[in-house]
Amino acid sequence: MDKAQDSKPWSIRDLIPENHPRRESLLIREKLIEAMEKSILVPQGLIAHGRGECFDYLIGEKTQDFAEKAIEAAAATLLLAKTPTISVNGNMAALVPEGLIRLAEESNAKLEINLFYRDERREKAIAEVLYKGGAKEVLGVGEDASEVIPELFSQRRRVSPKGIYKADVVLLGLEDGDRTEALVKMGKKVIAIDINPLSRTSRTATITIVDNIIRAVPRLVEKVKELKSKSKEELEQIVFNYDNKTILAESLKFIANRLTQLSLSL
Amino acid sequence: MDKAQDSKPWSIRDLIPENHPRRESLLIREKLIEAMEKSILVPQGLIAHGRGECFDYLIGEKTQDFAEKAIEAAAATLLLAKTPTISVNGNMAALVPEGLIRLAEESNAKLEINLFYRDERREKAIAEVLYKGGAKEVLGVGEDASEVIPELFSQRRRVSPKGIYKADVVLLGLEDGDRTEALVKMGKKVIAIDINPLSRTSRTATITIVDNIIRAVPRLVEKVKELKSKSKEELEQIVFNYDNKTILAESLKFIANRLTQLSLSL
Repeated sequence: MDKAQDSKPWSIRDLIPENHPRRESLLIREKLIEAMEKSILVPQGLIAHGRGECFDYLIGEKTQDFAEKAIEAAAATLLLAKTPTISVNGNMAALVPEGLIRLAEESNAKLEINLFYRDERREKAIAEVLYKGGAKEVLGVGEDASEVIPELFSQRRRVSPKGIYKADVVLLGLEDGDRTEALVKMGKKVIAIDINPLSRTSRTATITIVDNIIRAVPRLVEKVKELKSKSKEELEQIVFNYDNKTILAESLKFIANRLTQLSLSL
Repeated sequence: MDKAQDSKPWSIRDLIPENHPRRESLLIREKLIEAMEKSILVPQGLIAHGRGECFDYLIGEKTQDFAEKAIEAAAATLLLAKTPTISVNGNMAALVPEGLIRLAEESNAKLEINLFYRDERREKAIAEVLYKGGAKEVLGVGEDASEVIPELFSQRRRVSPKGIYKADVVLLGLEDGDRTEALVKMGKKVIAIDINPLSRTSRTATITIVDNIIRAVPRLVEKVKELKSKSKEELEQIVFNYDNKTILAESLKFIANRLTQLSLSL
């Protein structure tokens, strides 16, 4: 039997040929499974990742124009915000911890852990990832999540009074629709990184970045840095010109055209 | 804290409102996670399920016409086969064990366990599920998987001399492209149940049923029973009239049209 399969029954890292067409995708999967073993991710996070893989494939595994426009509007919104907060879940912590820390620094935002499947072991495992990556403060751990978002049945309703609860802008990724709706009802602007343009989160959020979080977060950091030199009026103009429904429609049309093209080349 | 979250940190079964829009989908996810805990499924199987969920959503979570046509051709092919074999993996065993056992009975096919991440504990756990469900024989467990399919780097290359190795027709689901290609190169007819019409398996298989395995397997059992009364010539006519590329193109056009419609109703 192969050595790698002996040590970890699910690991094929050492077996994937260098030129395998899905090599990168297979390695990201193993990264997520490791995160599950470290309690950073629950098993449902793997299923969510699978859904994301499918949509990423459909958008051509690239940051498309509709995502670029949403990233610009998101960067302007973060820079205009008074109390922006980045909501971190297991998938985000597993895939883009450094990017989130840099985004928080550049946009002066809080980092808050918020989990659908909340338990203290997971909170601490994720907080450790963020602190190790250089985060100065991580909200939403243990007793800090003392406030409650109305109308949610999961543990996701528990939030920090210093972060999401008082935030005017919340950035989130891979979120369930219930929670996005609840945050919007509380009057918050929600920036969602969601590669599924049909999800309730995508349709409910103020700004939806339809892109793989691995590409979207570093791109958003760059954009925030770039827009910092702009005036308040210029930033407001960017936000004013942005229409989320148009962007979502663009993304769906993009996928539809791509599938039509592919159907002709079979 | 909620009771259900206390006992199993990932379980929300008792928390999902009866009228939740995604209730059924959430319960299937828990079924798969339980299968992972029983060693029937590896974590990668959860990611694969997530990809499937996405495509199921895109085809409208219904067995569409392109799948019905493929199911008919698949049933005819199974009835014409001399040594048909059903290749069973973790996802299939977790979701449709009874359906696979009935399909094997009705089409006089062998059941063989074949795993990308092969280890004896998993093989035995899956065999147990099949035997409990009433299977008379389960191939591919332990030393029985003594033959080798060329050109595969994973443990999936190991097969039973009584099953897949000598089969003229192999039915498989949720398969990796490498293996499908290897089986086709060996001169076998491959029936794939794959909800992703763009996968290498879908494009390589002789017949691709683009549908959720949960719906496709029972439907295929019905179809085999229905076509049993047909003559060999009638069955051969069905197979002759079937063209897999046309079916895949139909499925892509269906999804493209659906997305275009959805983009107009945002």
